[in-house]
Amino acid sequence: MPPVAYWGEPIFEEEYSVELKSLTEQKSLLADLAPGKRTRLRRLLFEFGPGHGALMLLPIDQGIEHGPRDFFPNPASKDPDYQFRLAAEGGYSALACQIGMASKYYPDYAGQVPLILKVNGKTDIPSSAKAFSSCNASVEDAVRLGADAVGYTLYVGSPRQDEDLTQLRAVREDCDRYGMPLIVWSYPRGEAVEAKGGPNSFYAIDYAARLAMEMGADVVKLNMPKVNPETDKDAPAPYNEMQIDQAGAIQHCVESAGRALVVLSGGSKVDDDVVLNHCREIMQAGGSGVIFGRNVWQREWSDALEIVAQIKETLLSNVRRIP
Amino acid sequence: MPPVAYWGEPIFEEEYSVELKSLTEQKSLLADLAPGKRTRLRRLLFEFGPGHGALMLLPIDQGIEHGPRDFFPNPASKDPDYQFRLAAEGGYSALACQIGMASKYYPDYAGQVPLILKVNGKTDIPSSAKAFSSCNASVEDAVRLGADAVGYTLYVGSPRQDEDLTQLRAVREDCDRYGMPLIVWSYPRGEAVEAKGGPNSFYAIDYAARLAMEMGADVVKLNMPKVNPETDKDAPAPYNEMQIDQAGAIQHCVESAGRALVVLSGGSKVDDDVVLNHCREIMQAGGSGVIFGRNVWQREWSDALEIVAQIKETLLSNVRRIP
Amino acid sequence: MPPVAYWGEPIFEEEYSVELKSLTEQKSLLADLAPGKRTRLRRLLFEFGPGHGALMLLPIDQGIEHGPRDFFPNPASKDPDYQFRLAAEGGYSALACQIGMASKYYPDYAGQVPLILKVNGKTDIPSSAKAFSSCNASVEDAVRLGADAVGYTLYVGSPRQDEDLTQLRAVREDCDRYGMPLIVWSYPRGEAVEAKGGPNSFYAIDYAARLAMEMGADVVKLNMPKVNPETDKDAPAPYNEMQIDQAGAIQHCVESAGRALVVLSGGSKVDDDVVLNHCREIMQAGGSGVIFGRNVWQREWSDALEIVAQIKETLLSNVRRIP
Amino acid sequence: MPPVAYWGEPIFEEEYSVELKSLTEQKSLLADLAPGKRTRLRRLLFEFGPGHGALMLLPIDQGIEHGPRDFFPNPASKDPDYQFRLAAEGGYSALACQIGMASKYYPDYAGQVPLILKVNGKTDIPSSAKAFSSCNASVEDAVRLGADAVGYTLYVGSPRQDEDLTQLRAVREDCDRYGMPLIVWSYPRGEAVEAKGGPNSFYAIDYAARLAMEMGADVVKLNMPKVNPETDKDAPAPYNEMQIDQAGAIQHCVESAGRALVVLSGGSKVDDDVVLNHCREIMQAGGSGVIFGRNVWQREWSDALEIVAQIKETLLSNVRRIP
Amino acid sequence: MPPVAYWGEPIFEEEYSVELKSLTEQKSLLADLAPGKRTRLRRLLFEFGPGHGALMLLPIDQGIEHGPRDFFPNPASKDPDYQFRLAAEGGYSALACQIGMASKYYPDYAGQVPLILKVNGKTDIPSSAKAFSSCNASVEDAVRLGADAVGYTLYVGSPRQDEDLTQLRAVREDCDRYGMPLIVWSYPRGEAVEAKGGPNSFYAIDYAARLAMEMGADVVKLNMPKVNPETDKDAPAPYNEMQIDQAGAIQHCVESAGRALVVLSGGSKVDDDVVLNHCREIMQAGGSGVIFGRNVWQREWSDALEIVAQIKETLLSNVRRIP
Repeated sequence: MPPVAYWGEPIFEEEYSVELKSLTEQKSLLADLAPGKRTRLRRLLFEFGPGHGALMLLPIDQGIEHGPRDFFPNPASKDPDYQFRLAAEGGYSALACQIGMASKYYPDYAGQVPLILKVNGKTDIPSSAKAFSSCNASVEDAVRLGADAVGYTLYVGSPRQDEDLTQLRAVREDCDRYGMPLIVWSYPRGEAVEAKGGPNSFYAIDYAARLAMEMGADVVKLNMPKVNPETDKDAPAPYNEMQIDQAGAIQHCVESAGRALVVLSGGSKVDDDVVLNHCREIMQAGGSGVIFGRNVWQREWSDALEIVAQIKETLLSNVRRIP
Repeated sequence: MPPVAYWGEPIFEEEYSVELKSLTEQKSLLADLAPGKRTRLRRLLFEFGPGHGALMLLPIDQGIEHGPRDFFPNPASKDPDYQFRLAAEGGYSALACQIGMASKYYPDYAGQVPLILKVNGKTDIPSSAKAFSSCNASVEDAVRLGADAVGYTLYVGSPRQDEDLTQLRAVREDCDRYGMPLIVWSYPRGEAVEAKGGPNSFYAIDYAARLAMEMGADVVKLNMPKVNPETDKDAPAPYNEMQIDQAGAIQHCVESAGRALVVLSGGSKVDDDVVLNHCREIMQAGGSGVIFGRNVWQREWSDALEIVAQIKETLLSNVRRIP
Repeated sequence: MPPVAYWGEPIFEEEYSVELKSLTEQKSLLADLAPGKRTRLRRLLFEFGPGHGALMLLPIDQGIEHGPRDFFPNPASKDPDYQFRLAAEGGYSALACQIGMASKYYPDYAGQVPLILKVNGKTDIPSSAKAFSSCNASVEDAVRLGADAVGYTLYVGSPRQDEDLTQLRAVREDCDRYGMPLIVWSYPRGEAVEAKGGPNSFYAIDYAARLAMEMGADVVKLNMPKVNPETDKDAPAPYNEMQIDQAGAIQHCVESAGRALVVLSGGSKVDDDVVLNHCREIMQAGGSGVIFGRNVWQREWSDALEIVAQIKETLLSNVRRIP
Repeated sequence: MPPVAYWGEPIFEEEYSVELKSLTEQKSLLADLAPGKRTRLRRLLFEFGPGHGALMLLPIDQGIEHGPRDFFPNPASKDPDYQFRLAAEGGYSALACQIGMASKYYPDYAGQVPLILKVNGKTDIPSSAKAFSSCNASVEDAVRLGADAVGYTLYVGSPRQDEDLTQLRAVREDCDRYGMPLIVWSYPRGEAVEAKGGPNSFYAIDYAARLAMEMGADVVKLNMPKVNPETDKDAPAPYNEMQIDQAGAIQHCVESAGRALVVLSGGSKVDDDVVLNHCREIMQAGGSGVIFGRNVWQREWSDALEIVAQIKETLLSNVRRIP
Repeated sequence: MPPVAYWGEPIFEEEYSVELKSLTEQKSLLADLAPGKRTRLRRLLFEFGPGHGALMLLPIDQGIEHGPRDFFPNPASKDPDYQFRLAAEGGYSALACQIGMASKYYPDYAGQVPLILKVNGKTDIPSSAKAFSSCNASVEDAVRLGADAVGYTLYVGSPRQDEDLTQLRAVREDCDRYGMPLIVWSYPRGEAVEAKGGPNSFYAIDYAARLAMEMGADVVKLNMPKVNPETDKDAPAPYNEMQIDQAGAIQHCVESAGRALVVLSGGSKVDDDVVLNHCREIMQAGGSGVIFGRNVWQREWSDALEIVAQIKETLLSNVRRIP
């Protein structure tokens, strides 16, 4: 019989026969979380969405991060009700959005799908050389709205990183105060990152994973690291000369996040194959799921439901680690 | 019989036979607002002004935004009492001004016309490359003065946008606390905006509409988007190659504001035809009204009352969506 | 019989037969002030100084704004007791100074002459290209010291204007809280002002008058606008081509301050004729008085008392509008 | 019989027969101080140190302002206990140091010598072109430690002067709250000062004296002004053409500080003659004493006690004004 | 019999026969600490770790300061459980880490090894020309987690040093409030330091030691000063021409820290000889121990335990001063 977490769910579905080396592998990742955090995270992991510890999250913050241009491929997606309905009817673990949307659209779906309140954000109009995303909402707002987690974008390596960490601290403290899970969008960004291999390099994503965990994230949202010898040579050793494939790279990043759960973000719309491959890769690397937006809601309603079903199935059939 | 909001007023005057696709179209735009916000907004929409959900707002913040130069065409307009009297006698939905004017001139008209307290502002003397409009009054001031809404200028895309969103957050939170409607003057501005097609481009106005809604605006004030292939080519796709007329553009912007109401601002004085056309265009695009200043009070008293009557009539005869 | 304010004093000494056009002209300028503000302002306007609504204010903030160099022409003036005694014995409406002087010199004259506590200030050592005058005292200090008004320097048009308006807001709010009159030294300043005709242009002073009023000033202190076609051509229209004399310019500025009272500042020492002419001009323009420092206390004791007497007489014989 | 302060000590030892011109000369300089401030200052002026209103202060903040390099000439001085013991055994009015030293070394000497807690400081490593000395301790710390005064360094004329005055305001307000005397190290500094004759010019020191007093200092610490026609020509009039000797210059500076007491600082180690001459000069100029550090504790123990005795004697034999 | 601290432990193991010159040498370094600080520090000094006043600290903040690249030499070290287990099983005085690790990994080892919560940190991605490490956790967090000390990184000489000292002040005040020992990572850094001989010069480290003590540190963490005539010539006198060896230099630095304890940090991995030599040097210089990270946990488990044992033995056999 495999080892089980103390609330009775198996910890390692595939690896329970492997010798357990450290406490990290012996324990549930949720074991040390405060009761409020555990209560809320369990809703996302086991009560809504695919279940079995897999996270399928729907982000709808592109209207602020990129502007309405993302809605043109599927005009129906411009009405935020589209994404809220999709999250509810598609059986998502949660939907993530900003305060205005949470106030004006979430009430219709309250209780039907968990809410992640994104507390900071910015437009992509000004240069991101010194990127900083300021808070436009609070953890208290999230509590008031009945949200089950809070989202925060951290720009790792930006020249304004010091302000970012200070701001994150206040959010983290409020999360501790209210027992609210903290999900960190951990994005390498800024001129210094560009000079060391770019924001999607293995070096940068790996660093972002670790920093988010060390700053108190309960869940870390990462972009897929891209191994590229051309640009990786500008990264610090040993990344600048490393022989590693993408699967190895993402696994490293997941491990760097330690006991924080990892979800993979999507980016712009790509082929279905790529979408589902990413689902497989993150799960096999020990991650907890995906947060794909444009790849889902830039499709018409029935197409969207179709890919949602496939994503869900792929996640479930690749669960490697149940938190 | 057309669908009605639950307090008994028809939602779509012209379109009730159209198939309703989403909750956004089935519900009153005010349905999810807190009681204080709804009470106050209903005063503007139904008790004062044209009624029937149309907003006719009179701004008198040009004395700070441009200086007294705007008053020379009609010397009587220099005395703020002129605009206050005009708002009261002309039957406006509300008048918008800064704290000093609200303190020294509004008392004489208290109860005769609703007040929108503009809580931030700036002069146009320094460069607007890094525009930021700091708060000089509070939502609490608005409550104390008996105002029915608060106005806030957001410079979308400015390099100082991060400070702006932080400042707006505090105002929004106070609005939530006091049940005060939040009207956002959502203006693209700053060097980055200039480089992507300018502040009046469809791209920029559309983004501004969405951002304001996502930040929690209840009403969004927009400038009329100007389609200009010459400069639009610098905007991000798909705006840079889009074939769209002005009516289409403004409708897009109104839709981008979602469940936030949209009012169109005026700008410098233009021909009566243009003024009234703008009234038609915003209403037909699903907007809720206009906020024209110089086009009204740069006229002598009787001329001003005359155009006010025409604006009111035009708004009422073009109501397409009652909030 | 001329119209009278409701507490029984005539409003327009010379113009009561003119047709009254707006509420602004029908009412006392103090009518809408809170009781605390009115109580204190009346002390300055009617109980101390020339009376009859004329203000004769003595500023002694040059020690910080310019340094001790202003005291060399009259060495006795270096001892702050000189100005305090002059204010008391010369029959001033009030004396304005910084916190250190108010703490160490005002106690000897408490009750003999009203105090205006200047709450911000700066030296003239660093460049004023980005001028900002930070607060070194509070409205609460003013209350504690028994002051009857608070003085604040606003640098209109400075690149740091946004910080200035934020700082002024806090002072204004405290003035509202304590019923303390707010006197704004409204000074155009900074590189952007220089580029549009300079800090003493009609354009700049007119803007400064309006901005101060809109920000909540009860009294505005202005420099005399100087019409200069050479530099005015850099100002925005219509100032760049305006035909106006100095009397017209100052009257415009007084009107731009609306229901805020206007006092004229002096600047460096000039001929007696010029001093007294300025007194006449400000009163005839509808202003409320003067705030001359160096022109008074850079004279020896008896000379100083002499010019004080002439200023007082000139103000009284030119009262045009009693607040 | 000479005039006496109301608590019975003579005001002017040497000049009581001179005609008294202003209240400043008739009154004790402490007359208007709050009881807490007076109680504590009297400890420094009359109970410890030379007495008779003369201040002999020992500063030991060079370890932060310059680093340990100042301790090499006398290795024993590196142990802070050296200066604390010297202050106690040498009979000082008070010792001034930073929070860490006050916490770890003052307890052994509590009650044996009064403490001045220096609440701000900086290293001399970065450029001082935009000098600003941030607070690292509070007035409340001073109260808790049993200090009798607080020290604050103000960089007069620095481009960051606005921040400095804001910071000083908070310290001054706390001093008012707790009845704690405020000693201002008033130092001209920054690129603008350099351009106008330098930080030790008569112009700059004179301005510094006045500014400190106007900002609420009870005691002002000044450097000795150096008259230098070569560089003074860059100062504003009339300093740029003034004929004055050093005695005249320091007297001017003392007068500029008004009712604030003045102590002269020392600087790097110089000949005994110069040290004692400075003592004479400051006292004859109406100052209240000296604050010499390196000139004392860069000597071995017995030499140090020797010069201390001479300083004390020189101060006492040159008292000209008892506060 | 040698002198003993008043709680009965000998103060100087080797030097008790030397003439005692100052109170600093007569007293326990902990004598003046508040009870909470003493209680906690004694746990580190006597109850855990080598005991006898020697500190052996394990830092695991490299994941944020350098990123995961430091874990590649020993892949097992990537799992933070590795360092926590090592600290507990290796018999460390304490382990130092950031908030996220303290929250997610320390609970398993609570009570088995003391915790030092590092409250600020930064990545090494952006340039460190203007280095500043912002706070991401609080002293209250440390109290809540049962930590026995707080760690703070101070960048001595950075152009942003003023912000650093202000931030440190708040941490120090909280440490005073809660009786929490304050350990300062005192690191010279920034462009001005580079210009004066670099961050590891004797000049810079010596200054850093003193500054930390004067700012209230109870323990100071220093890098080993490197004497280098080539670069030292850019340092201020007398450092620029000093004849001193490394032992002399580190002893000077320890003395500059006064009654604050000194621990030596390690840096990148070096030969065992060097590691153990550093242990000897710091203890013989009167320091209190070492804080070596990579030199320990970049080794496999048994190798790591091996070097830990050697470090512990070396420290104990070189104790020169028991606090």
